[in-house]
Amino acid sequence: MISLADVQAARDRIAGVVRRTPLEYSHSFSEETGAEVYLKLENRQRTGAFKIRGAMNRIATLDEAARAAGVVTASAGNHAQGVALAASRAGVDATIVMPEHAPVSKVRATERYGGRVVLSGEDYDAAQARAHEIEAAEGRTYVHAFDDPDVVAGQGTIGLEILEDCPDLDTVVVAVGGGGLISGIATAIKSQRPDVRVVGVEAAGSAKLAASLRKGEPHVIDRVDTIADGIATRRVGDLTYPMIEEHVDEVVTVTDDQIALALVTLLDRTKTLAEGAGAVPLAAVLSGAFDYRPDEAIVPVISGGNVDLNALTTVIVRGLVETGRYLRIRTVLEDRPGALLGLAGVIAERDANISAIHHDRTSRDVALDDAEVEIDIETKGPEHVEELLAALREAGYEVEVLA
Amino acid sequence: MISLADVQAARDRIAGVVRRTPLEYSHSFSEETGAEVYLKLENRQRTGAFKIRGAMNRIATLDEAARAAGVVTASAGNHAQGVALAASRAGVDATIVMPEHAPVSKVRATERYGGRVVLSGEDYDAAQARAHEIEAAEGRTYVHAFDDPDVVAGQGTIGLEILEDCPDLDTVVVAVGGGGLISGIATAIKSQRPDVRVVGVEAAGSAKLAASLRKGEPHVIDRVDTIADGIATRRVGDLTYPMIEEHVDEVVTVTDDQIALALVTLLDRTKTLAEGAGAVPLAAVLSGAFDYRPDEAIVPVISGGNVDLNALTTVIVRGLVETGRYLRIRTVLEDRPGALLGLAGVIAERDANISAIHHDRTSRDVALDDAEVEIDIETKGPEHVEELLAALREAGYEVEVLA
Repeated sequence: MISLADVQAARDRIAGVVRRTPLEYSHSFSEETGAEVYLKLENRQRTGAFKIRGAMNRIATLDEAARAAGVVTASAGNHAQGVALAASRAGVDATIVMPEHAPVSKVRATERYGGRVVLSGEDYDAAQARAHEIEAAEGRTYVHAFDDPDVVAGQGTIGLEILEDCPDLDTVVVAVGGGGLISGIATAIKSQRPDVRVVGVEAAGSAKLAASLRKGEPHVIDRVDTIADGIATRRVGDLTYPMIEEHVDEVVTVTDDQIALALVTLLDRTKTLAEGAGAVPLAAVLSGAFDYRPDEAIVPVISGGNVDLNALTTVIVRGLVETGRYLRIRTVLEDRPGALLGLAGVIAERDANISAIHHDRTSRDVALDDAEVEIDIETKGPEHVEELLAALREAGYEVEVLA
Repeated sequence: MISLADVQAARDRIAGVVRRTPLEYSHSFSEETGAEVYLKLENRQRTGAFKIRGAMNRIATLDEAARAAGVVTASAGNHAQGVALAASRAGVDATIVMPEHAPVSKVRATERYGGRVVLSGEDYDAAQARAHEIEAAEGRTYVHAFDDPDVVAGQGTIGLEILEDCPDLDTVVVAVGGGGLISGIATAIKSQRPDVRVVGVEAAGSAKLAASLRKGEPHVIDRVDTIADGIATRRVGDLTYPMIEEHVDEVVTVTDDQIALALVTLLDRTKTLAEGAGAVPLAAVLSGAFDYRPDEAIVPVISGGNVDLNALTTVIVRGLVETGRYLRIRTVLEDRPGALLGLAGVIAERDANISAIHHDRTSRDVALDDAEVEIDIETKGPEHVEELLAALREAGYEVEVLA
């Protein structure tokens, strides 16, 4: 357990390097929900995510000998970059172990922030094992991504900033991966304002906390599957779990579709890019995963914005599908001149835009003389989608909706 | 011509509705360029773009009779939303004419801000003609998007904010469409600090200002073609041109590829979404379209962030292609079992990721027994692209690079 004093001490230690991120009132989300929504924009933190707070506080508490020996960690995500920048700012040598197939953008970013990257192992567990070997062999301090009191105290500094910037705070909403972020924030806030509600949000494909709370101890889930890769852990920490149990009022889940929709809506309305995990708390607010009063002051913590841009295009399309602004259908055309043109005509008549056509005469699922066609269409909303599908069916096409 | 006093008066008039947008120092772009780069984030203005400043100032100067009669304008872009919100905040009725095929997202947004939308005409010119008919028939005031002294004075308030937030300003960089934004900002800045350099940036596909300056008067270009649709005008204004001629020090152009790259880089590094026109000044800085000293304090004005999300995915891919992180190739496979697998094997060996395959046995360009295949590949950078292409050619594939 950590105390408010630990968080306050962390704040002083990290002040020179870590950015005090803005809390921005959102007209748009407030109007949409009826609540007063303020976004804590930790995606605009240095390195693009909150992890540097905890890493910096951990490194700042090392003694002279430990500083000289350096630190080591395993991560292919935001923690890697946080440790790299925190260490280089503190003049401490950092080795970051990443799995062999880590995205090159993550490797480069970590090196740019001053970390030495070792690629080792097929997956995160193997990389972590290698990092512990380096810890033992080189006498380095292992910086855990969440299950460490100094790391938790560092993340808690976000809670101090939120309380200062939003004195009328009613509810803070935080995504749960290993639990470091939420236990730090909850400690900082509940110690001063026990009346403030703390809501934890998990991705449905990584819901270890709900299972742990039912069991009364950290529960390890078998597999994780979510677009919110920043919180895709199989368990919460031994240190963070009791803090969450004590301080967190509600735990809810959101689906990948809700996360994609929140990410896209945030981009569209506030011109702000969040990563999947960063959009999770907003997804809970927008999907009504927990109840709130009109005018309740709610702060979703947008914890990070490091999303691979290749992946982003996929998420945007998914979000557009959710809002009825994108449609992918499959249908079969008789293999005769003009068949495709006829179909395109029906779509154009309904004022929809074809953005891609995949036309294949060789599919095994259709008769020899027919051709299967997949069409991506830009649409105007859910009603437009229904209208278009009805028109296609009326015109005699058997249509399968793919997305 | 307008004066500093006009801009200062505008500032008081619009203060209640218009947001004072942040000026943010960019560690990342400063490191990359060697200059001191501060971003003026006007994409976080209400309605997502600067246009509301000018519209608000214009409407605030109407007399009682004109207020009662209402306003009218033609626009399918940011000006539509700016006028709609400014008018509804001032309690003035607003009619916005948009071309019939205007994107539904723009229509909805304009209505949400309180404007009445009339869909009329095939293109912008036809919509504008209709708006002038309404002006005459209903006695409404036509609010021009740029060629109006009150509108220019309103946009100039951005210049006042930049000077306050960046006292050591050396250079401000502004995109040029009709010229309202740059003439306002240039007036505000040059009246106080004649030593500050004002750089105007055009899209190469809409370079009317450079042509006008050569000619010594506003020149109308025949056609425009650029992804920066917010500045895709065929001419600058009669009012704005002499102000630009007097105050603007340099005019440069950027290509669509440079704009896409700037947009993607901005999203990647600062988690901020700009529209094409909004990314234009940064494109000029990053591409070295004008010279600057080390440590020169440069402020690119990120003028708006309203980009259609369907279009955004295309721009992102284009930006990724520019950075060597995406590659689309075409090749021909012998039509035998395993041919595609062999090709995929070469790509996998080079640690590249196939994101899409379009396989067509029916293309007319290839022999009957062969199949043409298009492959989208995620790559790691320019060197990786070269390496991969060399490996494919070495393995006997004739490869055409499509993007």
